[in-house]
Amino acid sequence: MRILFVNGPNLNLLGEREPSIYGGTTLQQINDRVRDKARETGVEVVFYQSNHEGEIVERIQKARGQFDALVINPAAFTHTSVAIRDALIAANIPTIEVHLSNPAKRESFRQESLISDVVIGTVSGFGETSYYLGFEAAKEFGKRKE
Amino acid sequence: MRILFVNGPNLNLLGEREPSIYGGTTLQQINDRVRDKARETGVEVVFYQSNHEGEIVERIQKARGQFDALVINPAAFTHTSVAIRDALIAANIPTIEVHLSNPAKRESFRQESLISDVVIGTVSGFGETSYYLGFEAAKEFGKRKE
Amino acid sequence: MRILFVNGPNLNLLGEREPSIYGGTTLQQINDRVRDKARETGVEVVFYQSNHEGEIVERIQKARGQFDALVINPAAFTHTSVAIRDALIAANIPTIEVHLSNPAKRESFRQESLISDVVIGTVSGFGETSYYLGFEAAKEFGKRKE
Amino acid sequence: MRILFVNGPNLNLLGEREPSIYGGTTLQQINDRVRDKARETGVEVVFYQSNHEGEIVERIQKARGQFDALVINPAAFTHTSVAIRDALIAANIPTIEVHLSNPAKRESFRQESLISDVVIGTVSGFGETSYYLGFEAAKEFGKRKE
Amino acid sequence: MRILFVNGPNLNLLGEREPSIYGGTTLQQINDRVRDKARETGVEVVFYQSNHEGEIVERIQKARGQFDALVINPAAFTHTSVAIRDALIAANIPTIEVHLSNPAKRESFRQESLISDVVIGTVSGFGETSYYLGFEAAKEFGKRKE
Amino acid sequence: MRILFVNGPNLNLLGEREPSIYGGTTLQQINDRVRDKARETGVEVVFYQSNHEGEIVERIQKARGQFDALVINPAAFTHTSVAIRDALIAANIPTIEVHLSNPAKRESFRQESLISDVVIGTVSGFGETSYYLGFEAAKEFGKRKE
Amino acid sequence: MRILFVNGPNLNLLGEREPSIYGGTTLQQINDRVRDKARETGVEVVFYQSNHEGEIVERIQKARGQFDALVINPAAFTHTSVAIRDALIAANIPTIEVHLSNPAKRESFRQESLISDVVIGTVSGFGETSYYLGFEAAKEFGKRKE
Amino acid sequence: MRILFVNGPNLNLLGEREPSIYGGTTLQQINDRVRDKARETGVEVVFYQSNHEGEIVERIQKARGQFDALVINPAAFTHTSVAIRDALIAANIPTIEVHLSNPAKRESFRQESLISDVVIGTVSGFGETSYYLGFEAAKEFGKRKE
Amino acid sequence: MRILFVNGPNLNLLGEREPSIYGGTTLQQINDRVRDKARETGVEVVFYQSNHEGEIVERIQKARGQFDALVINPAAFTHTSVAIRDALIAANIPTIEVHLSNPAKRESFRQESLISDVVIGTVSGFGETSYYLGFEAAKEFGKRKE
Amino acid sequence: MRILFVNGPNLNLLGEREPSIYGGTTLQQINDRVRDKARETGVEVVFYQSNHEGEIVERIQKARGQFDALVINPAAFTHTSVAIRDALIAANIPTIEVHLSNPAKRESFRQESLISDVVIGTVSGFGETSYYLGFEAAKEFGKRKE
Amino acid sequence: MRILFVNGPNLNLLGEREPSIYGGTTLQQINDRVRDKARETGVEVVFYQSNHEGEIVERIQKARGQFDALVINPAAFTHTSVAIRDALIAANIPTIEVHLSNPAKRESFRQESLISDVVIGTVSGFGETSYYLGFEAAKEFGKRKE
Amino acid sequence: MRILFVNGPNLNLLGEREPSIYGGTTLQQINDRVRDKARETGVEVVFYQSNHEGEIVERIQKARGQFDALVINPAAFTHTSVAIRDALIAANIPTIEVHLSNPAKRESFRQESLISDVVIGTVSGFGETSYYLGFEAAKEFGKRKE
Repeated sequence: MRILFVNGPNLNLLGEREPSIYGGTTLQQINDRVRDKARETGVEVVFYQSNHEGEIVERIQKARGQFDALVINPAAFTHTSVAIRDALIAANIPTIEVHLSNPAKRESFRQESLISDVVIGTVSGFGETSYYLGFEAAKEFGKRKE
Repeated sequence: MRILFVNGPNLNLLGEREPSIYGGTTLQQINDRVRDKARETGVEVVFYQSNHEGEIVERIQKARGQFDALVINPAAFTHTSVAIRDALIAANIPTIEVHLSNPAKRESFRQESLISDVVIGTVSGFGETSYYLGFEAAKEFGKRKE
Repeated sequence: MRILFVNGPNLNLLGEREPSIYGGTTLQQINDRVRDKARETGVEVVFYQSNHEGEIVERIQKARGQFDALVINPAAFTHTSVAIRDALIAANIPTIEVHLSNPAKRESFRQESLISDVVIGTVSGFGETSYYLGFEAAKEFGKRKE
Repeated sequence: MRILFVNGPNLNLLGEREPSIYGGTTLQQINDRVRDKARETGVEVVFYQSNHEGEIVERIQKARGQFDALVINPAAFTHTSVAIRDALIAANIPTIEVHLSNPAKRESFRQESLISDVVIGTVSGFGETSYYLGFEAAKEFGKRKE
Repeated sequence: MRILFVNGPNLNLLGEREPSIYGGTTLQQINDRVRDKARETGVEVVFYQSNHEGEIVERIQKARGQFDALVINPAAFTHTSVAIRDALIAANIPTIEVHLSNPAKRESFRQESLISDVVIGTVSGFGETSYYLGFEAAKEFGKRKE
Repeated sequence: MRILFVNGPNLNLLGEREPSIYGGTTLQQINDRVRDKARETGVEVVFYQSNHEGEIVERIQKARGQFDALVINPAAFTHTSVAIRDALIAANIPTIEVHLSNPAKRESFRQESLISDVVIGTVSGFGETSYYLGFEAAKEFGKRKE
Repeated sequence: MRILFVNGPNLNLLGEREPSIYGGTTLQQINDRVRDKARETGVEVVFYQSNHEGEIVERIQKARGQFDALVINPAAFTHTSVAIRDALIAANIPTIEVHLSNPAKRESFRQESLISDVVIGTVSGFGETSYYLGFEAAKEFGKRKE
Repeated sequence: MRILFVNGPNLNLLGEREPSIYGGTTLQQINDRVRDKARETGVEVVFYQSNHEGEIVERIQKARGQFDALVINPAAFTHTSVAIRDALIAANIPTIEVHLSNPAKRESFRQESLISDVVIGTVSGFGETSYYLGFEAAKEFGKRKE
Repeated sequence: MRILFVNGPNLNLLGEREPSIYGGTTLQQINDRVRDKARETGVEVVFYQSNHEGEIVERIQKARGQFDALVINPAAFTHTSVAIRDALIAANIPTIEVHLSNPAKRESFRQESLISDVVIGTVSGFGETSYYLGFEAAKEFGKRKE
Repeated sequence: MRILFVNGPNLNLLGEREPSIYGGTTLQQINDRVRDKARETGVEVVFYQSNHEGEIVERIQKARGQFDALVINPAAFTHTSVAIRDALIAANIPTIEVHLSNPAKRESFRQESLISDVVIGTVSGFGETSYYLGFEAAKEFGKRKE
Repeated sequence: MRILFVNGPNLNLLGEREPSIYGGTTLQQINDRVRDKARETGVEVVFYQSNHEGEIVERIQKARGQFDALVINPAAFTHTSVAIRDALIAANIPTIEVHLSNPAKRESFRQESLISDVVIGTVSGFGETSYYLGFEAAKEFGKRKE
Repeated sequence: MRILFVNGPNLNLLGEREPSIYGGTTLQQINDRVRDKARETGVEVVFYQSNHEGEIVERIQKARGQFDALVINPAAFTHTSVAIRDALIAANIPTIEVHLSNPAKRESFRQESLISDVVIGTVSGFGETSYYLGFEAAKEFGKRKE
């Protein structure tokens, strides 16, 4: 089983940016912890981060037939990218949406999502734990037919 | 560690009602599986379901000081109950919101939530797995100070 | 053939409350007249009224498999109860919605309905006659496959 | 007692158009069945259909003083004709609005009505049965003072 | 100088319909009084009324080059007819809009106008006097270049 | 018969300000022409202009019992002054609202009026002619009971 | 003179819940202080609290003819209960609405009220003092015809 | 193959009305040019124009089974006619919507269409060329099953 | 203890204007009665009324440090004055908002308030009694730290 | 004559992605067919596709003075890119917007376009035929002055 | 060159009111610093502040032909005064709008401006520096034709 | 002191694109003039322009700790980029937003800004002068603690 993790803009700064909000863990450390969990259960994981909408679109396009599940934190693109939405539909891979923070506690424009209704489900608000729960869900739903 | 699971109206019908949508698992079976997981890690779990808004309000009120975390599927009350929202604020216990289905794929009035911004985070769209991920989150966040 | 009549909050006051608007007929008198009509055509009718949302939810839940049709006047709950809506979907009995007054002539919040799109049809504005027409519709649609 | 039935645009196609939705009964057959019911109770009925807003306006104007009640299915004009609304107010005859389908289950623009608040009441969603219930209501309310 | 008066649907009932609101003067009597005023100042006036949108569109189309000014009471079509609006733009005759009643005191849908921004000005709320003031404005603006 | 003309802010600049839009006639010249018309028919007219909302409120308050009709061009205050609205209701004098330009051709915020539903009627879009027609309406409606 | 005090959901927690916001006074202490004030002026007072919408509806129904005035703090139900609104209309007792906090300083959904336009007046924002002022108003308006 | 062209209100004035906007070509000249193109490819074309909504409804109704494709420029009725929409659904002929001008550059009410979601596709903004491209699309889609 | 009463536009007409609505008591009589109550409890009261927004702004500015509490009925300015709102924030005196009538029963624009969220609390709907209750609240909250 | 075709994100997947909706034709095959048509009429065509908003912006910028017309299918960027809109305005080349599907039949967010009002016209809903009709329009409008 | 500075309501309190937000500098000190800068470059400056809308309107009216540029901080009137907007249009002097704070960080009603679209440009958010930058802009744009 | 200037999409065309609106000055010339001003006061300036959202995000990320202030003209990205907003928050450098034109005079979608509430202040509408004033503000606010 192969799972792709896709991270949107500014997530490369995780751990440095606003640590009081997002905690001091870096994206690399989260990825390492996911890889450890994956190894235990024989799952292969690949990690990708980009600040460019077009690159994320193409990464998702290329994932078709290569991965059994997708875990995506679209970050700022959650609210503005119809292109990523269309790429997710085209890729047709079971997808889990994760967010570090709880959008319901933030600015109102963060409460409109162009992604949520094309994924299986969403995990949000648990900090780095959102990734670990998202990984569990991906294992569960990557196995099944959607 | 003690965790309370609260289920809102019509969830007593789970497994019988619209099985093509919600699957054939009953609430009792979900509770049993959560209890098994809880036993392995020494967590005590209590389950509660009601179709009455006032009873749920009072169950949450009484949970104060008795439980370390709360997992709630408010079902239809998600969208209409200011009273449950107020009770959650009053109880002041770390709370995880779970939903069986993905609200972003359903009627638009199901996309307004009166609960989401007073909980730590939300897990939705994974069927019964939402409860198991919610239980993991509760263990994680019940331990910490919010 | 068995038909259940469900009446929402404050309808127990019918005939006493604002008689200039709602007329002087009590709910009991309406029920009696429906029972007479039912007797003539060999239909069994049961009447239920409650001011409690949870009780109405449970009465509808229990009606599954017991009744061939449901006539409901949700009164104030028409505009606020997602729980009754969900119960009607779960019960899956042909349902007729009736209203004494014409909502289009009243406050604007009474013109939003959470019930109308999950019933077969609606009869509104004819005072007690709405019940008798609703009974006719129930006989017609209780017989058929929806 | 005399009752006028007014039918709006495209209802002349009833029975031929989308029979899976509207059933295979023609407007002529509905009218015949209403006439039979009317004969039994000594009521005189007149039927009118037009695809022209102006003609319907004039038919309603001429009904003043000639009929005791009006049953109208304004069809598409329900949502667009202030002129028919004004004609109904001017004619000042007790009026019953009927619809074959349940507007709450259709496109959102069909849920705005320019007619509903100037009639006594509405019957909708019961197919041809809406006409028969509308006829019953007309007999009841044609007799009374509004 | 030649002025055309165009009257929309249901105005043929003026004087008979809701006399407590619209007064007991008929459209014929208003026309007669306008004709008297016109005669004194050597203006020719023509009167037209129709309940049909298409006929009004064609009457306005034919007025091009035949009249120096247009006084129109579009009645119910004020709020629903883009076709009359387009005909007025095409005819390109100085036009005065008149209303018997004050729309600001009536239903909210009567406060949207599709006509007002393509006429020179509007006179509303003065009963039959609106027509006499509209006639004065037409004489004034029919003389000038717009 | 006594008629008061009230003019709102910036109308003191009439004739100088944007003459290509408002024409070259000053408020003084309009007042003179109204006075001439008034003299012919034995009507007494008084003219008032202010840029201060509070002063206009007090001028209207003092008009009670002193004038038979009021002609008001509230200018910019049309859209922002609840105080003038309340003063007009309190004064209870038949009032005519006039505007030089046609609000339907201007910015959208000029299409909301806080005044129109408390006056008898409105004349707008005819330049200085709006005042002369407003004066005619005031003579007509100052004579009658409202 | 008899006055009924009705309190909505979560008010049983008063004094314990968020004391930094609501103060340390319990509902019992407020009731005691009201009873003292009542005794001095020979007024009889009855206190009622419930977390159940249906129970409050029925308490208000039973108050008809038994009380001269009603003081209600509907709490969370202020924004969601059409049933309590209908019960207040049916009971037809002079009613005073009170709130501990000032809704204008809270979440936007707390600024919609389904109750305010069916009561005599509202007192909000003064903590427990709102109840004492509400009692004064009830004495004043319980004496008069509304 | 037979194609019907239907033109809505005011299009009879094409070429005369606002030539700076719509060009100097008349509807007759467009029809002639379409007929020439049709003759070359052995297609039969019929042209229809009306200013009456009801007549257009009936022309579309009669087209059922008589034509393989429909090209319609509903003009002003695009934005106001549910009746034409219903007639198009009932007729069930592959339909192409054309507009001379680009609605996105015009008044906002012209950007709401009641027709677009029941046709195959739309061509707009190319002046008379919109008709020629619409004809090409009709030939293409008239041949296929929709 | 010193309390300032500020009254907005048109309140100088109280008792004369629409006595059937506002009662026959004048503002002077209300002030006298408040002064009597104040004298009994050793409180000094000052009364101010103006129809000018700017004057009210300056009166509030000058109250800083001079008064312990402020009772304001902003009347029409409630809905339109950001300047009074800003002055209240700047003055930083505990303020009580009062209204004679219940805004929830009046025009919809009277339900938007620019003042309510910067005062301690609001008393509305009790006629002149609103002032007496407002005075009680001012005594209570003038004493405390806000 | 030179025409540039610009294609937005995910169109590189055409023919593979959701063939039941978009058909089995690839973008390459469409381009080939356009090139054949172009060759017959001596027009030069260039094709460009990118998933990157910035690259499309720069391709359009460089087209200035190099091409006589532009055919663009902005795909997902239709609804989100003000940058492409600004580039089109800056490039100032006659532009035709094409869409494979009919946006009026899809999600509501696809019905907002940031592009339509800066192009000559739009062709949508005809599958690959939209490109061929767009090419015809480009030849027609590339020749003229806009 | 002559520049007029106009300041709206409550700005006379600058330096005293909420110094933690607005800083401790008074309006007088800002004016002094502007005057120093002006003297160096031979520009004449005049300062005006009022809490009265009507007075500001009249000050702007009198500025016509007297000043080469206007710097205005309309404060609370930014959001409510159509009269000041109209006066600015009438005065036709190049105008610069300045704000001490950044409206995008404040209450939502402060984000609607009735002034911004009739000035050359806006400087906001820089505290007293906004005035100095506004003065620079005024020198630049006072010299040119707008 | 070091200041970074960031310019968004299409600004590379400045001076060539729509010179009647944006003037004939190129971005290079503006940068040169800023550099001259900077040199006089010993400030170091760096200029950056990109049409790619992702590149701008990364340029801002890298500016952290490298610059004392940021001047940004996000151009089209002002209205669509949550990613740039998030990068600005993460970079945590005092930022000044500048615009050549006055958004309040342009299309309505240009009046929504995703950037304004995370910067210190905004300068807009002064053409190239906006940059020079922005530079002055950056010097002022780069020196201080925000």
